[in-house]
Amino acid sequence: MKANGENRPGQNRPSHNRPGRGSVIETLTRVCLGPPLANRESRQREIGVLEGVPALGLDGLSSSAYGPEAALAVLTAVGVAGLGYFGPIMLTILALLGVLFLSYRQTIAAYPQSGGAYTVAKENLGANASLLAAAAIMVDYVLNVAVGISAGITALVSAVPMLHAYTLPLCLGVLVLLTLVNLRGVVDAGRLFALPTYLFVGSFIVILLLGGYAAVTSGGHPHALVAPPAPPPAVEAVGLWLLLRAFASGCTAMTGVEAVSNGVSVFREPRVSVARQTLAIIVVTLAFLLGGIAYVASAYGIAAMDQQQPGYQSVLSQLAAAIVGRGAFYYVAIASALAILCLSADTSFVGFPQLCRLVAQDGYLPRPFATVGRRLVFSVGVIYLAVTAGLLLVAFGGITDRLIPLFAIGAFLTFTMSQTGMVTHWRRELGGKRHGERRRVWLHLCINATGATATGAALAVIIIAKFTDGGWIMIVAIPVVIVLLKTIKRYYDGLDERLCDREALQFRKGKPPIVLVAMEGWNRLTDKALTLAMELSPDVLAVHLTALEGPDAGADERKLRAQWAAEVEKPADAARYPHTPQLLFLNAPYRRIHTPLLQSIKRVKGENPERTIAVLIPELVKTHWWQYLLHGGRAHRLLSAVLEYGGSRVVAIVVPWYLQEPNIEEAMSEEEQAAPARSHKITAARRQRRSGKRA
Amino acid sequence: MKANGENRPGQNRPSHNRPGRGSVIETLTRVCLGPPLANRESRQREIGVLEGVPALGLDGLSSSAYGPEAALAVLTAVGVAGLGYFGPIMLTILALLGVLFLSYRQTIAAYPQSGGAYTVAKENLGANASLLAAAAIMVDYVLNVAVGISAGITALVSAVPMLHAYTLPLCLGVLVLLTLVNLRGVVDAGRLFALPTYLFVGSFIVILLLGGYAAVTSGGHPHALVAPPAPPPAVEAVGLWLLLRAFASGCTAMTGVEAVSNGVSVFREPRVSVARQTLAIIVVTLAFLLGGIAYVASAYGIAAMDQQQPGYQSVLSQLAAAIVGRGAFYYVAIASALAILCLSADTSFVGFPQLCRLVAQDGYLPRPFATVGRRLVFSVGVIYLAVTAGLLLVAFGGITDRLIPLFAIGAFLTFTMSQTGMVTHWRRELGGKRHGERRRVWLHLCINATGATATGAALAVIIIAKFTDGGWIMIVAIPVVIVLLKTIKRYYDGLDERLCDREALQFRKGKPPIVLVAMEGWNRLTDKALTLAMELSPDVLAVHLTALEGPDAGADERKLRAQWAAEVEKPADAARYPHTPQLLFLNAPYRRIHTPLLQSIKRVKGENPERTIAVLIPELVKTHWWQYLLHGGRAHRLLSAVLEYGGSRVVAIVVPWYLQEPNIEEAMSEEEQAAPARSHKITAARRQRRSGKRA
Repeated sequence: MKANGENRPGQNRPSHNRPGRGSVIETLTRVCLGPPLANRESRQREIGVLEGVPALGLDGLSSSAYGPEAALAVLTAVGVAGLGYFGPIMLTILALLGVLFLSYRQTIAAYPQSGGAYTVAKENLGANASLLAAAAIMVDYVLNVAVGISAGITALVSAVPMLHAYTLPLCLGVLVLLTLVNLRGVVDAGRLFALPTYLFVGSFIVILLLGGYAAVTSGGHPHALVAPPAPPPAVEAVGLWLLLRAFASGCTAMTGVEAVSNGVSVFREPRVSVARQTLAIIVVTLAFLLGGIAYVASAYGIAAMDQQQPGYQSVLSQLAAAIVGRGAFYYVAIASALAILCLSADTSFVGFPQLCRLVAQDGYLPRPFATVGRRLVFSVGVIYLAVTAGLLLVAFGGITDRLIPLFAIGAFLTFTMSQTGMVTHWRRELGGKRHGERRRVWLHLCINATGATATGAALAVIIIAKFTDGGWIMIVAIPVVIVLLKTIKRYYDGLDERLCDREALQFRKGKPPIVLVAMEGWNRLTDKALTLAMELSPDVLAVHLTALEGPDAGADERKLRAQWAAEVEKPADAARYPHTPQLLFLNAPYRRIHTPLLQSIKRVKGENPERTIAVLIPELVKTHWWQYLLHGGRAHRLLSAVLEYGGSRVVAIVVPWYLQEPNIEEAMSEEEQAAPARSHKITAARRQRRSGKRA
Repeated sequence: MKANGENRPGQNRPSHNRPGRGSVIETLTRVCLGPPLANRESRQREIGVLEGVPALGLDGLSSSAYGPEAALAVLTAVGVAGLGYFGPIMLTILALLGVLFLSYRQTIAAYPQSGGAYTVAKENLGANASLLAAAAIMVDYVLNVAVGISAGITALVSAVPMLHAYTLPLCLGVLVLLTLVNLRGVVDAGRLFALPTYLFVGSFIVILLLGGYAAVTSGGHPHALVAPPAPPPAVEAVGLWLLLRAFASGCTAMTGVEAVSNGVSVFREPRVSVARQTLAIIVVTLAFLLGGIAYVASAYGIAAMDQQQPGYQSVLSQLAAAIVGRGAFYYVAIASALAILCLSADTSFVGFPQLCRLVAQDGYLPRPFATVGRRLVFSVGVIYLAVTAGLLLVAFGGITDRLIPLFAIGAFLTFTMSQTGMVTHWRRELGGKRHGERRRVWLHLCINATGATATGAALAVIIIAKFTDGGWIMIVAIPVVIVLLKTIKRYYDGLDERLCDREALQFRKGKPPIVLVAMEGWNRLTDKALTLAMELSPDVLAVHLTALEGPDAGADERKLRAQWAAEVEKPADAARYPHTPQLLFLNAPYRRIHTPLLQSIKRVKGENPERTIAVLIPELVKTHWWQYLLHGGRAHRLLSAVLEYGGSRVVAIVVPWYLQEPNIEEAMSEEEQAAPARSHKITAARRQRRSGKRA
């Protein structure tokens, strides 16, 4: 048994005493993220409309809390004269929203495999356009997380000033919550965030209905329970430029609409219909909220207040107070608004990993982005998003007001790309259709063309209006991201080209490798390693490094020489073994184990130009963290050096030696132990049998 | 060539274009620590008296700055009546110092291989006593670093109050400086710190001579240039307890005396004589400073001031101001005193690694403590000391006053152990000596016995006087350290027992291993790995994991099957190869690569109870940090899992694949390239030739 490398049975303690190395981490992960999910469970992890609205709609719905206010803030700057334009501007935005809704309904049906702007542009406008869309939307998603959380926490802090010192920790806390929930899965996020979402939607529908009723019954001049502060007097005339800026600011209310089309693949079957229903609910609710706010706010004469001044109240807060007074209902409504502002980043956590997966599958992002994680979500994308947004939050100290203008640019660029791509799509479709169907396709084409024109025009307005407010950052950031994506693609393409094997396997018998065995002294490790080396090849060379510990060491060289004679050479002579291993002493003047070994590898390579050199490294397997402190980690350093510098004719063989024989089950989670993996073997015989049957 | 695993020549760019992975780190290390030193350079790195006094004497000499003051502080508490006892107490301490000096002179001669208390106790009093000594002195060294730096920086901060906010960063800065200098080597530390040391010694010798001359010529009542503040009035009578406490406090002035005997091995030859000269210079200078301070301070009527009060001035500062006034000389002297207080920790950095090396060679500390580092110092000990002291400094915010009492306990425990050990040593020596020599040995014995008695008595006084001031912490810490040391020893002994091989190598020809080849698809990596596998064994099984990316993946299984038929099975049939590799598809339901593979390893092990299983892992070698982001690191995870859980019949073979063929020289430093390592080979033939010559 010993010659076979097996530890003595008497030395193996029962395996259940041997703690798995990662057991603490695994327990923690299990608590935070839940048990691992199998591939076959993916169906159960798909979401319906109920979870879809919170998961993919939080961004869109929460924008009703700041979009109208942003437009109103621009108008309020010129006093009462400006406020009159609030209604028309919001109507324009609602019309644009309607066009977008119709367009995206069509996109979802046409591209049920997650038809975001990236896919649509790739299929219809080419690789460069798709990368532009991908870059814009990726930058947007990252900004959305930082800005969304920051906006929510800023609102919370202005409501509860004693939290002011904790702005950044609060932001990071929300970020960690969102990350953990989304690592658990989209379903869990959808369910957890359903309560605040539906509470917000419900309470503001009630408020707006009450306010609307009061406005209509009072002939347009309702009585406010809590009167809003008077708007400032007119200071300048209303010009076109002001109206364009107000429109551009109000467009932030639409930024979440793309999310559903990016996330189609997270829905359950019938996928297209569920996604369309979800989109419809989100857009109709958003439209109601936007329109209601515009009408009621105008009726009650509510203006935006300066956020920098003390006593600031948001438009929503003024509205709720005016209509229902400062009672319990007011506080529930405002608290839910705060909550969904904080959680609006959740939509990015659903959309971003899905987008990155598509981009990574095309080779423009690192491959791990396309790998499903423990809970069947694309964990790498989730973590990357969290880290990038976290860095932004830390860099800006949790206050990201200046990033808000950047937002709408990315979103409207994406809208325009997506619509333009759909126009091309329908034009292609037109070719193969009969006359009766062509009309339907023409209708689709017109809708998307209208969408493309409208969002394109809006994009132009936004870029011009926001350029000096920081919009130029997007103009810089997006090309940088595109270059990065292309560089990654070039690396992978080059790698695939290099790895591609156009030749068949060769079946001429080569010589066995020359085996170098690294040894520290004569012990069981060396015995096991030499035994294996002799099984692999007749050419075995044991290598011992001297003076590794320092100038005073090296006294044991003589001892090892005697042991070698007694334990290796004498029995080899006795057994008339023809290929007795040789022992090589290497001096390590700089006490670095790998350089002398690499030098002798080079020498052996030079002497044997056709043969493979196998470096055999015995390693004591460590099962406790403290063992890493007690052992120098030489085996590992040696392995790294041999692999990094050895060259393509060198391979490394690691021979483990266990203090306690391990049990393979320890490496498996409970779930894996319960459901053993399936396997099937393809052998030449079986293949011939099968092809025989077919013939 | 391809079948041999070599990359195509055309694909190899010139090797000098390929940057070494650690090149930035190596450049930084080279700047901070200097070039690596070879074992043969160790002679040049030994120190003489000139460097020895700063390197090993800083602790002792700097204690003159706080030892007398500590004693005086206790006495000042009872007013003028107490000050009269300052002279007698300092005389007692000087007498003790004399005894210690004579004792350690003898110890150095008797144990020239670093004769610290650990070695002396081990040779004469047994393992347990030696561990007690080692634990006491190790704890002491760590405390000395934290307290020394903290005391220096506290003095600096009280002199320059605007630095107060930076106390901790300043402490850590000094710690980093000391660590880097000592990682460079003892010689460098000795040379760098010579200037402040000799400046301090020189200026205070001048000050004390001037003060002493003034005191003598004025009949004991010299005129102070800057009058010291009047001592407080008497508040209580002087009791024995107060005198004992003053004595115990004053004993901190002796704590650095052990260092030279611990560090004997860092001196150049003639080692004993150089070490004795260094010890003599340190002790005589210290004695002069202590005696001088006692005499002159009494003459000038200087008392200790309360450190907590504003306007505090140290005894040295009062003394210098009284004798030479507040001119340039005063500031030079006080600045040098500050500098050596900060740097007093340097002595620990020399002594601690040397001690740890001895303890580690005996198996009581992790083996890396006994390994010489880049610059021929025991780097692990230096770094461990720095980290532990750094943690103490951070934990106490850079203010470690409360740790000062702990000091003297460790030092005097060590003194007593060392002297007692020497008494036993001489008693044993007595046995084998003739009458004439016995007298000399008796003299040695008496000196050490006096030393043991005196330091033992002092230790008892210190423990009693300091117990409630925190002395109890040492009484707790030392046993904890001893238990830790013994646990480490037990682990190594158990390991050696398990690893010890009492059987000779067996030479019956075993079967070759069964080779499992992990593959991701058909490419050059797989080709190279399979070719190697077939060189090693006729039993080759290629393993492909499906559904690793997630539930949607796995479409390429059919493609791989076709490639396998075309690239492996067809050519194998054509070449009539008898052992065509088989292809095994493994399903990974939880997307973890290692568990299905471990399960099939278990199955193969079960089916082949006598054979070794080799898992062949192809790995793309990464040379840039960003490549780790672009590749998933599966090969590495697989290797770890196979080694950790595979069991003793499993070995791992890593087959590297290079994008660019590496050059072995890249792994070597300039120095290693300049001086290639020597090697010599022991072969059976050569051995027989040699033994033939002998016969």
